[in-house]
Parts: sequence; structure tokens; C-alpha cells
Amino acid sequence: MTADPANPEHPERAAVAALADDFLTRLREWIAIPSIGADPAHHGDVAGSAHWLADALRADGWPEVAVWDEGPALPAVHACWPSADPAAPTVLVYAHHDVQPVDPLEQWEHPPFEGVVVGEELFGRGASDDKGQVAMHLLAVQAHLRATGATAPAVTLKLFVEGEEESGSPHLGELLDRHADDLACDLVVFTDTPMYSRDAPTVNTGQRGVLGAEVFFTGGTSDVHSGRAGGGVPNPATAIARLVAALHDADGRVLLPGFYADVVEPTPLERADYAALPFDEAEWLSANAGGARAGTGEAGWSTLERVWVRPTAEVNGIQGGYTGPGLKTIVPASASVKLSFRLVPDQQPAKVMAALREFVAANTPEGVEAEVVVRGDGVPAYAADVTHPATLAVHEAMSASFDQPVRYSRTGGSGPAGVLHDRLGVPVVYFGATLPDDRIHAPNERVVLPVLLRGAEAAARLWRLLPERLS
Amino acid sequence: MTADPANPEHPERAAVAALADDFLTRLREWIAIPSIGADPAHHGDVAGSAHWLADALRADGWPEVAVWDEGPALPAVHACWPSADPAAPTVLVYAHHDVQPVDPLEQWEHPPFEGVVVGEELFGRGASDDKGQVAMHLLAVQAHLRATGATAPAVTLKLFVEGEEESGSPHLGELLDRHADDLACDLVVFTDTPMYSRDAPTVNTGQRGVLGAEVFFTGGTSDVHSGRAGGGVPNPATAIARLVAALHDADGRVLLPGFYADVVEPTPLERADYAALPFDEAEWLSANAGGARAGTGEAGWSTLERVWVRPTAEVNGIQGGYTGPGLKTIVPASASVKLSFRLVPDQQPAKVMAALREFVAANTPEGVEAEVVVRGDGVPAYAADVTHPATLAVHEAMSASFDQPVRYSRTGGSGPAGVLHDRLGVPVVYFGATLPDDRIHAPNERVVLPVLLRGAEAAARLWRLLPERLS
Repeated sequence: MTADPANPEHPERAAVAALADDFLTRLREWIAIPSIGADPAHHGDVAGSAHWLADALRADGWPEVAVWDEGPALPAVHACWPSADPAAPTVLVYAHHDVQPVDPLEQWEHPPFEGVVVGEELFGRGASDDKGQVAMHLLAVQAHLRATGATAPAVTLKLFVEGEEESGSPHLGELLDRHADDLACDLVVFTDTPMYSRDAPTVNTGQRGVLGAEVFFTGGTSDVHSGRAGGGVPNPATAIARLVAALHDADGRVLLPGFYADVVEPTPLERADYAALPFDEAEWLSANAGGARAGTGEAGWSTLERVWVRPTAEVNGIQGGYTGPGLKTIVPASASVKLSFRLVPDQQPAKVMAALREFVAANTPEGVEAEVVVRGDGVPAYAADVTHPATLAVHEAMSASFDQPVRYSRTGGSGPAGVLHDRLGVPVVYFGATLPDDRIHAPNERVVLPVLLRGAEAAARLWRLLPERLS
Repeated sequence: MTADPANPEHPERAAVAALADDFLTRLREWIAIPSIGADPAHHGDVAGSAHWLADALRADGWPEVAVWDEGPALPAVHACWPSADPAAPTVLVYAHHDVQPVDPLEQWEHPPFEGVVVGEELFGRGASDDKGQVAMHLLAVQAHLRATGATAPAVTLKLFVEGEEESGSPHLGELLDRHADDLACDLVVFTDTPMYSRDAPTVNTGQRGVLGAEVFFTGGTSDVHSGRAGGGVPNPATAIARLVAALHDADGRVLLPGFYADVVEPTPLERADYAALPFDEAEWLSANAGGARAGTGEAGWSTLERVWVRPTAEVNGIQGGYTGPGLKTIVPASASVKLSFRLVPDQQPAKVMAALREFVAANTPEGVEAEVVVRGDGVPAYAADVTHPATLAVHEAMSASFDQPVRYSRTGGSGPAGVLHDRLGVPVVYFGATLPDDRIHAPNERVVLPVLLRGAEAAARLWRLLPERLS
């Protein structure tokens, strides 16, 4: 990052630099509000966080600002700043202001709600996920106006910052329906994903979906002494193990009927980008995989592809029979397995669930009774179209701001982008400037300030570029 | 049972009838001593039970009686009554006087330590397992002397009644070694197994062995978010399920290397006997298999054969990942399975354990670390030779006493018969007159008194027959 902030080719960079101190002061103030959505004791803080944001937006000059606190959803913030040009596109930025719990508290090196700055890093719960990125957008709009000299943004900007993302956005669909007019737009900019790394900035283009279910196998009504009946009756624990073993073939492909029928593979450009990213397996395993000893998975795909663009069937938990100390020679009466499937475009959760039921029925042995309990409706996968002008504009804005080659990446987790796309009926692009090693959801969450400022510069640039790119 | 007790063809029956009242009084007194070996608070009662038995034997005229209470084994009782004929064979009766715990106490219809008689049944802990059968032997010796008019038994009788059988006989080998001279014999009569049913009396000829182990699979050092790494790292819970699934082929045969190499199949006579026994699958499932819905198992064998004469590999417990309420989308760091193998002659526990280790090594996927923890040395299987004169004598004595066709049967559980055989170097035959539905180890244990009295008659007859049959 050698460019001169005052360089007239980088008006947004200069504007961001001028506003950076205020930005930091403001973000530290917001982090101090412990808006932990999972803890009812902190729901007052979630409301406080929403009102803090609304006040900050009003102070910045956003003409329309509202806190949606009509329940049952925790308070969300909505704002709108119309473009002076009535023909300009309307862009809705999605993000969230609720944060994860902080336990184990003793593992934090700095208090989680003080926003301690050490060198280039700002530590605190929400610094990266997602208050830092919301603050980045507030800064970006200010920088956009300062760089363009206008009094209104080049696009009509809407902001939708929900308060329940860390709880799985249980009322998001309801909010989207109830406030359909307020949220109507031409494009959603989804800001809750990281880049690949500081050295390899990327435009995220997708998240996997997820679907969870539990399968219960029951033999008799009580455990049986294995000397009495062992060998002559079905063993539900063995049966559930066979069901799990039947989930994959030798190449690691999932054997639910029709599982891959709707899978859309990434484009050759995306695969080339993934292959060009710096990747050290040992480092990745240590940072992402809890110290796993080796990467493995579906044949024919790289590790990054396996976790970004390929669907999975994972055992999250398995249980049956006696699990205390020592041995107990029983044939268990029952066993169960918790399964989750990471989905990719265009797999539909409901269709996969139907396939799971079919698979379980086909793999339930004689004498065993099966029950499949679905956990929620699942979250659909979403991927942005890398040929869409909005995606290209994000790529252009990021490339100009980071002074490095910017590639495409994805993330393996799940989020509500697909829900936003489905309910609002518009394309979604991802825009983020945080890092995978920000320790979100963990102790010592941090954000790297120079990276976040480059993100603000890119967003400011994006608002300037979009009217032309989308025309 | 229409025979006349005074019939001179049945001198043992007449003698048993004359002694039956005293027998019942005595057994009820013994049951009142709660000799629960598993509970240290009752170890005084285990000693009390041993001394009660020693006193009873002395009262009956046994010339050599001892309580072995030298630790660490709980007290055992030894007695010897030499035959007047120094050439007569020496027979050692093995049984035990410790009993199972009684919880859940509220499910008992009568107090477990009062020996309540209702019709033909005597209720109480130990009534069937194994005090009732020990008392049966005491009665049998008295009846034998009365029926033959002798003052000493026709065979040299030794009694060895241990106090730790319900705890897995942890010090049995030690006792057998330490008291090798006291226990030296030509034949062991093992009395701790039931007949097939009241309507189908049988001579038991075998018990399966058992071997337990736990297999631990570990991936990383901590659970991993399945969105972050799912699909790219090994899942130890999936891996352990595949290990379990690989344990059997489609015909239900166990796939450990060499598992069947040493298996001795039952004789055609035994298989014919098993097939001739009354068997109602639904009833058997309800009585023996905790209400399992269907009998299943190794192809080519009946249910009784599967649980009596075929070896098994059972999952006793399986555990991995998140097992609390709801879902948690993780790739577990580890998973484990508790396995036990029921063994048949001449499978050796140590050899099977080596095969398990080989099997686990061959089924541990890349990136997973396996640990096999053996639970004890295992218990070898044992089967009596159905062509041996002692077995034939038991069959003859039972047939004469039960006035019904007597067939051969086995039991699927495990016991120390193989240890007795190996350490003492003599044949073991089984002799028992209890029933599989006596609810041993469960609330409302009972023994059916007329059946037990027929057993005493058969034992008394056996002592008369053996010198000639073994000559």
C-alpha cells in the first residue's frame, strides 16, 4: 500500500484518510455496547446498539432512519439516503449489529467490550463480525460524498442492519415481508463475509447453505444383555453406523438420491482463481480445522473447493447405547445421529430433506424403526453471478483500492444471502473487508484497521461506479 | 410329573420329597442375607453368607468345610466329602453365593431379601442365581445318602462356591492356583446356568465367551465448525461409523481377519435338539430381547443358534461429537465405540483381540488416529463334549428325573467354565435346574420350586450313576 492518499487518482482514499480518526472513535464506542443477541440479559444492549447506530446515521446526514423494534425480532436498523438522480439504482446494504457471546472470558487478552487498539489491530467482540463492517459502510458513504463533492450518494442507498444474525436470523423472512417497500431495491450488497487473506484480497461470491436433521433408530424398548440375545436381534447402533457409512461412496461423494442433480459448479474463472490463491495445507488445517492431521474429501476437488463449492454430508454427533466408563455388554435399544448437509447452488433444502428421508427408509434394516427429525427449514446456498455487472463493479472497486490482484473466493459457511435474494427478487453481491483469522465467534476477535479502511475506500468507489456499470 | 414319590424306581425322588420342607426353610434363611458383591457396604453380608453356607454344610455332615477369606477375593466356601471308595471319581461342583444388586427396588412386588413363597414360586434375590442351585446341591447330597442308605457319597464330592461371580470372578484364577490341591478333581459340575424352559428341560452344554474393547478415533484437537472446514477434513464420527459398518458382511458374518478359523460348530445332534425345542419368535423377542421387533443375524443359523453357538461383534455404545439438544454444525474432533465380541469354542480372546487391532489399523482413514483399549483379558467360551460319559450321565439323570424328553441347549452368556477347565485340566459339564424367565439380575427374581426339586433329584441320581459311567 504505497499509494499517496492525496493522489487525485484516489479521491476516495484521501477522503477515507481524512475521516479515519473519527471512524475509529465511533467504532470503539459502538463495540462498548455488548449487543449479545443469544443472551436475553443483553437484549437491552441489542436495542441500545440499534439506537446508537440510528443516532450515528442521523448525525451523518442520512435523511431516513428507523429502528424496527416491533418484535418478535430483536431491533433492526433501517436507513435510506436517496440519490439526487431519480434514475439511479437502489442498493440495499445488508449487515447485522448483534454479536456472539464472549465466553470463555478468561481467554480474552483485552476486555471484549472496550475496543482496545494494538498496532494495526482493534480488539473487541463485533470488531470484525459485524460492527466493524457496518462502521466501514458509514465511513464509506461519508468518503463517497467527500470524494465526489455531492450532497447525496450516486446511488440510492438503503441500509438494513438486523439484530438476530448470530441467532440464525429467525425472523428475517418476516421482516423482509413486513417491510417489503422499505427494502425494495435493485441490488443487495451483503456485508458479512471476509476476504481470503490480507495478502490475497478477494471478492467473496458465495456461501454454502445448510440443512440439519436427526435420525433415530429404535430396536426394542430397552437395552438387552448381549449374552442373552446378542447375534439374534438387530443392533440399532450398528444399524445407524451402517446408515452413516452408506452416506458416501469411496470417492467421498454423497449418496442421497439426486444429491448432485441441481449442483451448479463454479466457473472455470473461479476455479482458476481458487487455484491461484496462496494455500498451505498444514497452515490451513491448523487455522481452520482444529488441528486436523490431513485434508481429505471428495475426489477431484481441492481443499478450498471442497469447503467452498462442494456440498457435504457431515455427522455432527452420534450416540447410542452405553457411553459411560468401562464396558456394558448390551445390545442398545436405540441410537441416533445428528447430520448436517452443507449445500451449494442450486440445491434446495426441501428437496435434500426429501432425499434424506428416502435414503433413511432404504437403509433402515428389518426390526428397526426409523424417525427423521428435521431441524428447521435449512438455509439455501447462494452464489453471485461472476459475469453480472454488479459483481464486476465490486471486483473493480476492490482491485483499485487494494493495489493488488483481487481474485474471487467463497466461504463455506452459511448466511441469509439466499433468503434476501429469494424474498427481494434481486441479485446479491458480497462485499467484505475482514479476514478469516479475525477470530470471529472466539476470544480475541479483532479487525485489521488498514484493511477495513481499504474496504471503506472500495465501498465509496463502488457507489461512484455503480450507476454507470448498472446502466 | 405324575410319578409316585414313594415309587421304589425313584428312590431319589422319595428322598427329596421327604427333605423338601427343610430345604425351603433353609433357602429362605440364606436369601435373607443380602450378599451383594458389587456393593462394598454389603461385603460383610457376603462374608455372612459364606459362613451361613459353611455352617449348613457342617450341619449336613460334610467332613471338610472351609471359608476362604484370605483376600483379595470376597469369601468363598470350600467343602469336601470323600467317598468311601478310594477309587471313586472326584467331582467338583462350582457355583456362587454372591448376588446382584436389587435396584430399582420399587419394582419388586415382594421384599427381595425375605424369600416370599407364592404358589410354586420362591421370590428373592439369589433365589435362582445362584443360592437356589447351591441349596439344590446340598439337598441332593442329603437325598443321595438317604436314597442309597450310605454314609458317604458314591463319588468324592467337592464344593467350591465363590463370592465374586457377579463381579466377573476377578480373582478366580488366583483362587484356583492357590488352592490347586483342594480343588483337584476328575470332573467339574458347573451349576450356574438354566434349562431351556419348564416344558422343555435341557442339559446346558456351553456358554459363549466374551471380549470387550473400545476404539477411539481422533481427527484434530478440537471440534471444527462444519462451514469452515466441513468437506475438507476427516470426520472421526463418520470414520468410526464406517469401521462399525465394515465389521460385518451382508450375511451378518464378522469380518475380523481369521475370526471363524477356530470356530467349532455344534454337532448335528445338538443342532437337531435346538431345532426340536419349542420356539416362538415373538415370545422370545418379548422375553429376551427387550421387545425387539424382529430376530435377525447371521445367515444360515436359527435365532437360538445365533445366540448360543455363533460368535458376534456387537456395538455396546457409540459416541462422538455433539449429543445435546438441537443441532451444532461441527466436524467432531473425536468419536469412540465400545465393542464386545461373544466368542464360541475354540476362539481365543487374545487372538481375536489381535485380529481387532489389525482390523482397526486397516480401517483407520488418513488423517485419523486410532487407539484400541482392551477391557480385561476376556472370558473364553466353553462347551461340554456331548459324547463324553459325564455329559451322557447328566443327560440320563435329568431325563429320569424330569419324566420328559431332555434335550441339549446352550446359553449365550459367559461364565468361568472355560477358566475352570483350563486351570484344573479336567472336563466341565453343566448342571442346572433354573429357568431363563427367572428374572435373574432383575427385579422379582424367583425360582420355581418343583423344578428345583427335580433338579435336586437329578443331582442325587447323578452322584449314584457317575462312578459306573466314568469307570
